[in-house]
Amino acid sequence: MPRAILFDVFGTLVDWRGSVAAGLAAYGAENGVEADWFAVTDAWRGAYAPSMDRVRRGETPWRHLDELHREALAALLPKFGVENVQSSHLDELVKLWHRLTPWPDSVLGLQRLKQRFIIASLSNGHVALQIALAKHTGFPWDMIFGADLYRHYKRDKETYLGACGFLGLPPGKVMLAAAHNDDLAAARALGLQTAFISRPMEYGAPDERARPDQKWEIVADSVEDLAAQLGLG
Amino acid sequence: MPRAILFDVFGTLVDWRGSVAAGLAAYGAENGVEADWFAVTDAWRGAYAPSMDRVRRGETPWRHLDELHREALAALLPKFGVENVQSSHLDELVKLWHRLTPWPDSVLGLQRLKQRFIIASLSNGHVALQIALAKHTGFPWDMIFGADLYRHYKRDKETYLGACGFLGLPPGKVMLAAAHNDDLAAARALGLQTAFISRPMEYGAPDERARPDQKWEIVADSVEDLAAQLGLG
Repeated sequence: MPRAILFDVFGTLVDWRGSVAAGLAAYGAENGVEADWFAVTDAWRGAYAPSMDRVRRGETPWRHLDELHREALAALLPKFGVENVQSSHLDELVKLWHRLTPWPDSVLGLQRLKQRFIIASLSNGHVALQIALAKHTGFPWDMIFGADLYRHYKRDKETYLGACGFLGLPPGKVMLAAAHNDDLAAARALGLQTAFISRPMEYGAPDERARPDQKWEIVADSVEDLAAQLGLG
Repeated sequence: MPRAILFDVFGTLVDWRGSVAAGLAAYGAENGVEADWFAVTDAWRGAYAPSMDRVRRGETPWRHLDELHREALAALLPKFGVENVQSSHLDELVKLWHRLTPWPDSVLGLQRLKQRFIIASLSNGHVALQIALAKHTGFPWDMIFGADLYRHYKRDKETYLGACGFLGLPPGKVMLAAAHNDDLAAARALGLQTAFISRPMEYGAPDERARPDQKWEIVADSVEDLAAQLGLG
């Protein structure tokens, strides 16, 4: 049994795609701008890994996710026919990632798990983003681990081992719960336990990425299912 | 109005003296050891500032509070006639600082303040200690700031400014709430707002240290009073 469970957030606990697309559409309606907002959302999310990789490789200095999100959005909006967005509107749109909607099972599942385990986020979001998101969603974290605590992004080992270090626990006593096989693979390589949470709708339609590609310690279809499999009915 | 309120923990939110003395007395009763446990507690707490100062001056490498507490306790017990304490018992006694009893108003006051503000700890306790303490007490933190996040102890500026940085807020939008004038003075010098919470029984009897020695923005006699003064009846 683990002592602590770390959770990936974007995709694992929240529906970033539906939430961001809805927020963009609301912005469009208020400002008389039309675009394929789901396509904008997908392109925005698509810029995420490359922008973190540039930080990870040291090609740019440390920047947190709001900064990466803002730069990416400013670059991609014109490609979707959205021109001359005010700077203050860009700031507001970046904050959509602070107000994402949880999957229906996330809060209840975390509440159950908190009764027996230390529960903490392990997200590429920075602390300020995650505090805002937890206040919006009600995630009952014991601790928030943000990328800015180590100035490293997943899948860098500093993030997984940094969290274990702050918890004062060896990696074998810590479980990562995530909807993404590569996140779990990075954690497993460092000795953490792993729980795959299948989120077939993360990308908007049933998706093969929602299938486990290794034999993870636990495979669950929700956070409530994870809690049940760990003995918390 | 601040956006976030940071709380000192030992003395401000919890009765460390009563809790630790009770835990030591229970240890004594179980193991047939007699001593003046309040005097041991006071001596233990007395070793706190000098041990952090040695870390702060770079005379010893970074060590978290469990390590400082263990070293201090091992050194002082023989002076109180307590000899040959098992190593595993020392480990257990150090954990008394993970299970301190809150003052009666702390949890309710924090719950109220959380409705409108970001509430976070700013303690010399490390993250693991503070997670355990929050699970024991029910402190509903939005975020835990521990000394190990910066490897600095209060009153070093890195702790106050580090927390503001992670919150993404200028110091003027952040308030420190503490029972100790020198903690507030250090925060005020960096531009934070300040709230003095009087805890006349922290040292076991009504004590002049429980009086404000500057004109702090707020002077309160409990966390519930702080909440009321900030408009949360």
